Amino acid sequence: MERLPGFRDFYPEPLPHPELWSADARQYIFDKWRGMARRYGFREYDGPPLEALELFTTKSGEEIVGQLYNFTDKGGREISLRPEMTPTLARMVAAYERGYKKPLKWFALPQLFRYERQQKGRLREHFQFNADILGERHPAADAELIALLIDTLRSFGLTEQDFVIRLSSRNAWQDFFRDHHGDAAQEYAFYQIIDKLERETPEQSDEKLKGAGLSLEEVSAFIELGKPTAELEAILQNLAARGLSDYVKIDYHVIRGLAYYTGVVFEAFDRKGEFRAIAGGGRYDNLVKLISGGKVDLPALGFGMGDVVLLELLKARALLPRFDAALDAFCLIEDEALRNESLKLIHDLRAAGLVVDYSLTPAKSDKQFKRAQELKARHTIRLDRMPTGELTLKVKNLKTREENVVPVAEAAARLCESQG
Amino acid sequence: MERLPGFRDFYPEPLPHPELWSADARQYIFDKWRGMARRYGFREYDGPPLEALELFTTKSGEEIVGQLYNFTDKGGREISLRPEMTPTLARMVAAYERGYKKPLKWFALPQLFRYERQQKGRLREHFQFNADILGERHPAADAELIALLIDTLRSFGLTEQDFVIRLSSRNAWQDFFRDHHGDAAQEYAFYQIIDKLERETPEQSDEKLKGAGLSLEEVSAFIELGKPTAELEAILQNLAARGLSDYVKIDYHVIRGLAYYTGVVFEAFDRKGEFRAIAGGGRYDNLVKLISGGKVDLPALGFGMGDVVLLELLKARALLPRFDAALDAFCLIEDEALRNESLKLIHDLRAAGLVVDYSLTPAKSDKQFKRAQELKARHTIRLDRMPTGELTLKVKNLKTREENVVPVAEAAARLCESQG
Repeated sequence: MERLPGFRDFYPEPLPHPELWSADARQYIFDKWRGMARRYGFREYDGPPLEALELFTTKSGEEIVGQLYNFTDKGGREISLRPEMTPTLARMVAAYERGYKKPLKWFALPQLFRYERQQKGRLREHFQFNADILGERHPAADAELIALLIDTLRSFGLTEQDFVIRLSSRNAWQDFFRDHHGDAAQEYAFYQIIDKLERETPEQSDEKLKGAGLSLEEVSAFIELGKPTAELEAILQNLAARGLSDYVKIDYHVIRGLAYYTGVVFEAFDRKGEFRAIAGGGRYDNLVKLISGGKVDLPALGFGMGDVVLLELLKARALLPRFDAALDAFCLIEDEALRNESLKLIHDLRAAGLVVDYSLTPAKSDKQFKRAQELKARHTIRLDRMPTGELTLKVKNLKTREENVVPVAEAAARLCESQG
Repeated sequence: MERLPGFRDFYPEPLPHPELWSADARQYIFDKWRGMARRYGFREYDGPPLEALELFTTKSGEEIVGQLYNFTDKGGREISLRPEMTPTLARMVAAYERGYKKPLKWFALPQLFRYERQQKGRLREHFQFNADILGERHPAADAELIALLIDTLRSFGLTEQDFVIRLSSRNAWQDFFRDHHGDAAQEYAFYQIIDKLERETPEQSDEKLKGAGLSLEEVSAFIELGKPTAELEAILQNLAARGLSDYVKIDYHVIRGLAYYTGVVFEAFDRKGEFRAIAGGGRYDNLVKLISGGKVDLPALGFGMGDVVLLELLKARALLPRFDAALDAFCLIEDEALRNESLKLIHDLRAAGLVVDYSLTPAKSDKQFKRAQELKARHTIRLDRMPTGELTLKVKNLKTREENVVPVAEAAARLCESQG
């Protein structure tokens, strides 16, 4: 039986086939995401992978609906697997916002789903690091969020040579649109044209822009000038104070497709332009109000970073570490008469926090040793019974090949020592 | 807008309402599960939350089908959200078993789903710790798996006073059934009667058993005697060698409902009998063969432990720690002229691995200090400009109330020191 098209299985390393997805690499990414979010004082939340379809159709531009992984459940409800986390976050915050001091700094690592026409290699799910700040209008919040985005990417070993945050603002485009007497009814359509500027020919864009009463020439000049708004100036200064100037630039090409963004928007790209956006986000000051039916009004902003593009980039830059079982010790049981004593030792070492494995059944000495090597154990350990009846323990460091006799009672301490 | 019935939102602590689910408690449980599995040399895997419906209907007794969260997708496929992890594991292992050395020791922390008629408090999803060993028929594998189960529960602070593993065997019941000339066609129905023994009246059970040509008296005597089979003896001895005898007992009431179990079965229960089973599992030596259409034949066994009963038990035994933001430092910005220098300091401390927060916008000194206390920060830190122009840093330990002046360059080292 096969898994569903567009979904992934995650296998332990070493992978028996180069096209398999690594569960260890996934966990490595999750740990980095979670670790940096916590350092920044962000707190974790999560919601259900399924929501009422209405939660997503209420808030999104029409462009998202056809892509939803939606269905009718056994109770006749219209349901969707979540395509993004922000509506769930807005719903959750709206329900209990009085119980939390503002601003909220929250993060989640949800799996997200979409139902697109199946193309080779196109996935129907991915994992996403979502970080949001709610309850603060000041651009200091935008800067804090963008700094988290930058430092998260840096924690993987990526540098300013590898990626850049392209910073833009819906407000800037709104001013431009009004200054150029754009038709208010066409404002959102105009944003969609800007969003597609880099993917279409100048002729296509120009024709569409003319339809909205504008020209590609005017638009291109505005992008070329790239004059930061006051809010963008404040963000750039804040990031400069942190020493992060080399990681950001103003780029008005970025406008973000989703309908709900209201202010600053940004995307992270690899400098070489080989991959799709690594992350994207922005301000959505009206969404909580919309989702809560007007009951709760909280300014908000956030970003999402997917696992798939990030993993491609880390692979291309050779920044993924080698993953293995990380065994502190493999216990060789060469004398079956000592199996019970070995089990006790193994149990004590695990209780002390060490990662220990062994052969479940009797096996030849060299086969056991080979297994220890395959598992990249740092040490082999083996009990021995002295002619006096006393038990001794031999600890061998598989890197240095050095072997020492260690009192059984000191085994855990010795192995912990040489872990570093 | 509301979340779907039977699903949970997970909020950061402190929770604004006692009935909310804690994202921090969930992560605490996940960390313990993952940590103990790794110490035992188990490797993580995961599959998609959705599978073809067929994967579950092929392997399960009819009793599971009505409970599936299944639906038809946009492409007309019959789909189900996974109700358990074992079929996915069998599918994944069957696809790449040649690429891995046996035995496999694998674990996963999947979210599982069911669609039951909605009752108050009945959930339609939960998270489950799944650990499995594949490729080993010897009862040493059963003992290793049960030891992992015991040590996982112990890692939460639970003791032999709190829980016990009830150990049983389908083989023992099979022998009993044949010795008593049960009708082979009724064997699985017989297991279902045993499975329900503790939930039905003696009269109900006796009547059903008579239908299968047996009596409650014979069955009760067999359970009462509780004579371990050879495989159970081997497991008990193995666990005794590890010092875990007080955590297990033979109890033939346990037989497990699912059709695919073939040998040893077991369940973990709280000693006081207040809760449903904490965990359950057993051998399923034929399942990989069934799922792979006969291509791969691997003996296997595993257990599942859900998050909901475990959390109830930990709460009842007061074994959950207090969760908070775990801030190493809250940076007070009392002089706005020092905001940029403070941002730099905060950034450096976070880069050193510390959890640091601050007020995004200008705020009164006492309000900032109050926020630091609310967040349970271990220290407050604040920059000060000397009349000489030099910057100094004041570090205050919020527990001891002690305040020290620390060279700015040494801030990270000092705060790391006093973390312990």
